[in-house]
Amino acid sequence: MYTCPVRSGIITLTTDFGLADPFVGIMKGVLLARCPRAILVDLTHGIAPGDVLGAALAVHAALPHFPPGTLHLAVVDPGVGTDRRVLCARDGDTLLLAPDNGLIPAALDPFGGGQRDRRAFFEVRTASLALPAASATFHGRDVFAPVAAALAGGEEPSALGPAVDDPAVLAFARPVSRDSAVLGEVIHVDRFGNLLTNIGGDALPASWGVVVAGRDVPSARTYGEALPGSLLALTGSLGLVEIAVRDGSAAAALGASRGTAVRLEARGNGA
Amino acid sequence: MYTCPVRSGIITLTTDFGLADPFVGIMKGVLLARCPRAILVDLTHGIAPGDVLGAALAVHAALPHFPPGTLHLAVVDPGVGTDRRVLCARDGDTLLLAPDNGLIPAALDPFGGGQRDRRAFFEVRTASLALPAASATFHGRDVFAPVAAALAGGEEPSALGPAVDDPAVLAFARPVSRDSAVLGEVIHVDRFGNLLTNIGGDALPASWGVVVAGRDVPSARTYGEALPGSLLALTGSLGLVEIAVRDGSAAAALGASRGTAVRLEARGNGA
Amino acid sequence: MYTCPVRSGIITLTTDFGLADPFVGIMKGVLLARCPRAILVDLTHGIAPGDVLGAALAVHAALPHFPPGTLHLAVVDPGVGTDRRVLCARDGDTLLLAPDNGLIPAALDPFGGGQRDRRAFFEVRTASLALPAASATFHGRDVFAPVAAALAGGEEPSALGPAVDDPAVLAFARPVSRDSAVLGEVIHVDRFGNLLTNIGGDALPASWGVVVAGRDVPSARTYGEALPGSLLALTGSLGLVEIAVRDGSAAAALGASRGTAVRLEARGNGA
Repeated sequence: MYTCPVRSGIITLTTDFGLADPFVGIMKGVLLARCPRAILVDLTHGIAPGDVLGAALAVHAALPHFPPGTLHLAVVDPGVGTDRRVLCARDGDTLLLAPDNGLIPAALDPFGGGQRDRRAFFEVRTASLALPAASATFHGRDVFAPVAAALAGGEEPSALGPAVDDPAVLAFARPVSRDSAVLGEVIHVDRFGNLLTNIGGDALPASWGVVVAGRDVPSARTYGEALPGSLLALTGSLGLVEIAVRDGSAAAALGASRGTAVRLEARGNGA
Repeated sequence: MYTCPVRSGIITLTTDFGLADPFVGIMKGVLLARCPRAILVDLTHGIAPGDVLGAALAVHAALPHFPPGTLHLAVVDPGVGTDRRVLCARDGDTLLLAPDNGLIPAALDPFGGGQRDRRAFFEVRTASLALPAASATFHGRDVFAPVAAALAGGEEPSALGPAVDDPAVLAFARPVSRDSAVLGEVIHVDRFGNLLTNIGGDALPASWGVVVAGRDVPSARTYGEALPGSLLALTGSLGLVEIAVRDGSAAAALGASRGTAVRLEARGNGA
Repeated sequence: MYTCPVRSGIITLTTDFGLADPFVGIMKGVLLARCPRAILVDLTHGIAPGDVLGAALAVHAALPHFPPGTLHLAVVDPGVGTDRRVLCARDGDTLLLAPDNGLIPAALDPFGGGQRDRRAFFEVRTASLALPAASATFHGRDVFAPVAAALAGGEEPSALGPAVDDPAVLAFARPVSRDSAVLGEVIHVDRFGNLLTNIGGDALPASWGVVVAGRDVPSARTYGEALPGSLLALTGSLGLVEIAVRDGSAAAALGASRGTAVRLEARGNGA
């Protein structure tokens, strides 16, 4: 049976806990008490409360950039206190741990079509870890952090519970091709007001543009091709089509937010 | 004489410095320059400016979850530039360092009644550490970080200055029992809008509820027992009574904030 | 030729990426994948988008407090996607890496007059590092993090590209002496509402005060000399004149912000 290699010791943390309360720091205390050599890296704790898809996108963006043996722990858990399962996934040399609410499948493969043969899902039967009684409200501290410490310390996911073939699924909206256009939508607005869409940016027409919020936006390869203050569409750092304003905020310029429709069209040269 | 065991190397940091300025990062530079193996964990830097009680509650919540030998450094210091003392406390295997403004006693024992025999307080006579002249305004960098580095490196608190038996005290309001009810108040609103009260949640009637902001709120054991959007009261992760809205904000629903009165009552079954 | 000593392993990070997106965490993944022993310290990621001077001031404040061999990485890069250079500087035992947009010279010497003989600047020719193709928008991840990892691992700046004698320059406004007064301005407002000016605080008259926003503000040595709620001017933790309100916000009290004029005057005793 396939087993994970020696862990890198890196545990990334993604939550909707914010940074004004000590919740994240307390999880780190539990992790370090049980796994003193862990290297803890915050992805973000600014996920909107309960926004499972937002957390999945953050983890998705990070996956290719961490070394083999990294564990990604994500706790956005509106179902805490219900009987939702605790899910661990192995994807090649990477581990993921989160509530079974769709977060992990969406992080691995938000738009479908990924390599499924590298993956295995396991339910974590926390009773096997002899954890103290969990609080009703803070499983990040009482369940997820101890399990993450065990995994970072070398425990195999398969030793924590049975394989699962029906993880909860919660996909991003997929773009639709119609005539020569692609109809997608905004899935994330970043700090700079850039609009990240669900349209892949790797197989685009030679000349293209987008229509969003009633505005025609031309494409560019880099910000440097656009004048300051003007709109442009380009393939962003996740490999997806993004809409930006050079030295400004596309979200503000367009009044756009998550869910705003985006239509990508081929354009004639010189249009 | 009792001495602390080998330090864990962990130093937690709690301040009201925020994260927009480099203050916290600069403190970490001083810590790492003097104690290169320190493991630095942020509890929170989002304490409201000067909110000593808020900092104490954050440290209190973290204390049980860090390994023996951890040092908790908290710098919320409205008295910087006055002659307030620098206080170090030992509580069993844990060290705390903060201005002598009530923060440490409130962190150890916010509601009274704790185990006082495990504790000792010391004034840090910073002259003994031969620190460079401190600035007038940034003792986190110039005083607390160097002292914390010395402690994390193995220095005994008792070597830094005389024992203190009159630390400044600043307790949270304590709940009052009246007839069969307990009268308490909201002491913290967390990121999710949950209302944390000063009423202990470990010796409650079999059936109970709270009255807050004119609303009757039933108790539950977990969020899963309440309908989305409805109010519930439960014992939260600190062992205190909390008021929440499932998938929502109790603070917004009730217009409640720190200081809002909370009345806990026994309820008949089926009420 | 002078070479840097063994690196401390510390890399500080300063960006305008904010903490709501996973950008900073992803950069840390790249850094740790290539330099597993790096010790990563956030200075701040709350720089306003594109505020190169704000980032320079943050790094400037941190420089004296980190151990020799520290690398300061700052990515505030409104020119991403243009042909701006990547700049590495050596200043004695300290390294800095940032876009060539004026950030590094302003961080080393915001007001002019520093020790230039300790410094050398190099253009980083990233082709020499055989990096994968960079995205158009996220050079923090694709360019700066890999270069920083190489430097933290011991690479010499001079091995990465040619010496540069014309780094882009972008200085803070310098104060002007007129008659017996010094005319300066507010260059930063911190979390507490303190107004940091560009006027040095180490060669002041025995008795002095400032005029700002039409108000006379007396000087003090510490906050403790002022009554709660009252304005004072003092030499702050960067060695610059600051204007504060004890237990309050000078920015709010004065309606002041970056660029507000400040006039420092000698005052008669007893005035």
